[in-house]
Amino acid sequence: MQEQIKVAVDAMGGDHAPAQPVKGAVEAVARRKDVHVFLVGQKGVIEEELKQCAYAGDQITVVDAPEVIETAEPPVMAIRRKKQSSIVVGMNLVKQQEADAFVSAGSSGAVLVGGQVIVGRMKGVERPPLAPLIPTEKGVSLLIDCGANVDARPSHLVQFAQMGSIYMKHVMGVEQPRVAIVNIGAEEEKGNALVKETFPMLKNCPDIHFVGSIEARDIPKGEADVIVCEAFVGNVILKLYEGLASTLMRVIKQGMMTSLKSKIGGLMVKPALKQTLKAFDATEYGGAPLLGLKGLVVKTHGNAMAKEVTNSILQCATFHEQEINERIKNKLEISSKEE
Amino acid sequence: MQEQIKVAVDAMGGDHAPAQPVKGAVEAVARRKDVHVFLVGQKGVIEEELKQCAYAGDQITVVDAPEVIETAEPPVMAIRRKKQSSIVVGMNLVKQQEADAFVSAGSSGAVLVGGQVIVGRMKGVERPPLAPLIPTEKGVSLLIDCGANVDARPSHLVQFAQMGSIYMKHVMGVEQPRVAIVNIGAEEEKGNALVKETFPMLKNCPDIHFVGSIEARDIPKGEADVIVCEAFVGNVILKLYEGLASTLMRVIKQGMMTSLKSKIGGLMVKPALKQTLKAFDATEYGGAPLLGLKGLVVKTHGNAMAKEVTNSILQCATFHEQEINERIKNKLEISSKEE
Repeated sequence: MQEQIKVAVDAMGGDHAPAQPVKGAVEAVARRKDVHVFLVGQKGVIEEELKQCAYAGDQITVVDAPEVIETAEPPVMAIRRKKQSSIVVGMNLVKQQEADAFVSAGSSGAVLVGGQVIVGRMKGVERPPLAPLIPTEKGVSLLIDCGANVDARPSHLVQFAQMGSIYMKHVMGVEQPRVAIVNIGAEEEKGNALVKETFPMLKNCPDIHFVGSIEARDIPKGEADVIVCEAFVGNVILKLYEGLASTLMRVIKQGMMTSLKSKIGGLMVKPALKQTLKAFDATEYGGAPLLGLKGLVVKTHGNAMAKEVTNSILQCATFHEQEINERIKNKLEISSKEE
Repeated sequence: MQEQIKVAVDAMGGDHAPAQPVKGAVEAVARRKDVHVFLVGQKGVIEEELKQCAYAGDQITVVDAPEVIETAEPPVMAIRRKKQSSIVVGMNLVKQQEADAFVSAGSSGAVLVGGQVIVGRMKGVERPPLAPLIPTEKGVSLLIDCGANVDARPSHLVQFAQMGSIYMKHVMGVEQPRVAIVNIGAEEEKGNALVKETFPMLKNCPDIHFVGSIEARDIPKGEADVIVCEAFVGNVILKLYEGLASTLMRVIKQGMMTSLKSKIGGLMVKPALKQTLKAFDATEYGGAPLLGLKGLVVKTHGNAMAKEVTNSILQCATFHEQEINERIKNKLEISSKEE
């Protein structure tokens, strides 16, 4: 029998739970016969949703987790106290190696804390980064780190570059991922203390393809595949990306509604625009992996719809098949020996 | 006789020099009879441009500066060596109080260095911030600091908040400017070391209207008037703003060109879109002031057209009329006494 890839999915997390996570899981198992999903959450509620989807197969198991962590709850406290929440139960499945990965659209803070506290870091990983894919003119780039651990050290950033390169190569299929560090100018001598110290380390790192600094204005052009920065800056980039794109879209839609002529024109451009902007939608690729853990944790958007959940589950399958954690482990071991 | 406001303009700076700065100056003096402009740069070239504009008035004086600082030159060296460059000559006019302000589209680095080294900081100002206006759904916000001095201290950020509030109130006419600090979450306990230390200081600062943290996604919505951050983060926000907006526009235009139907639709929405997006164009308001100097220095975009130069000159006039530097001086003196 073929090896099964087991993915736990938080059925209670996000704005559209449980309907969308359940729908996403049903779609994912329909696409891949070798994937098994554990839907974690309030059993009765999930079973009701599965009925709505008319799912009657054996690739989905419901795992009961009666408690729910709310988005606003202080994460550390929530993880410690709500042992029966979908996030804690789901992460424990990964910890106990009953699942290979866990996907959640729930509280970012709780997912990040749970990943470190429950699943735990791989040996040699100094800090596990959250690495969302952001859309660019040429496809997607990995923005690493956007997590919750700010004030990073240079050695963290070098590991981000190494882990990010492995991810982009083996999960996203980019042959030689270009690594760049976010900076305020192209020259090596530019930057803050962290960037100045990290730059030569990246330059001398043998197993990445470092292309130098990237200014924020060039990120949307897709001029690097792995964009390295510390989490505060990464968070600003990620949030501004989402915020500015949605504000501009709203402003453009309003513009199209100003006259009868522009309304008619708007209807005529709509299908073409939709198609173009679809390419600018990173949810096509799944969620943001939290790398460097003993197992995979993927954080999807809080407003994730079924499609993003499906894509995240398939992303977990690729991650497992490509043995990303083995590759990270080997890479970091070699690096630490070289030092 | 009415008091003249004297503004020096770098006629050699930027991608469209000398034509656009000269044109911008001619337009500015046409709008305000009490403004006198010193056009600084290669005399013959400027006089030729003035002829093209058919300018024959007495509100413009040409000041010869035969040397030109290129964008790629190391700024400190350029300022030190090219004493006869338009930037050094223009800044010296401000230093010697022959001009009230200096406007340049030239090398950012040279303008920032020149501002500090030639014009000099006001007494009490720890660090002069560069504060561009960025467009939002509701108008514009002041993003302070986007300069070249990274790794700021909390006390710098508090002064940025104070200076930015004065600017937004008295130059932009915002009655009670809302001040927010860029952060990765809304709660007070979130953030990196700098933000955590600065937050309570802003909260306790009596003469600003502090509204707390702002996440990057809310910046385009216009949820604060004065957005405080250190220069590395500010630079990332500013550049990403410009880069993402222009990339999205390009992608949308491409989308409109995909079929005959969408092309016709595109032509029909174009006027309405142009109008809407005009509101999303900060050059309508002038350039970025470098605050806290003994005189005003305004940096316009490298690709500034005449309109931005004109608006920057008018902005200098308002700055002078509203006695912004007097207000900053008084505010910082009071603050330092309170400590």
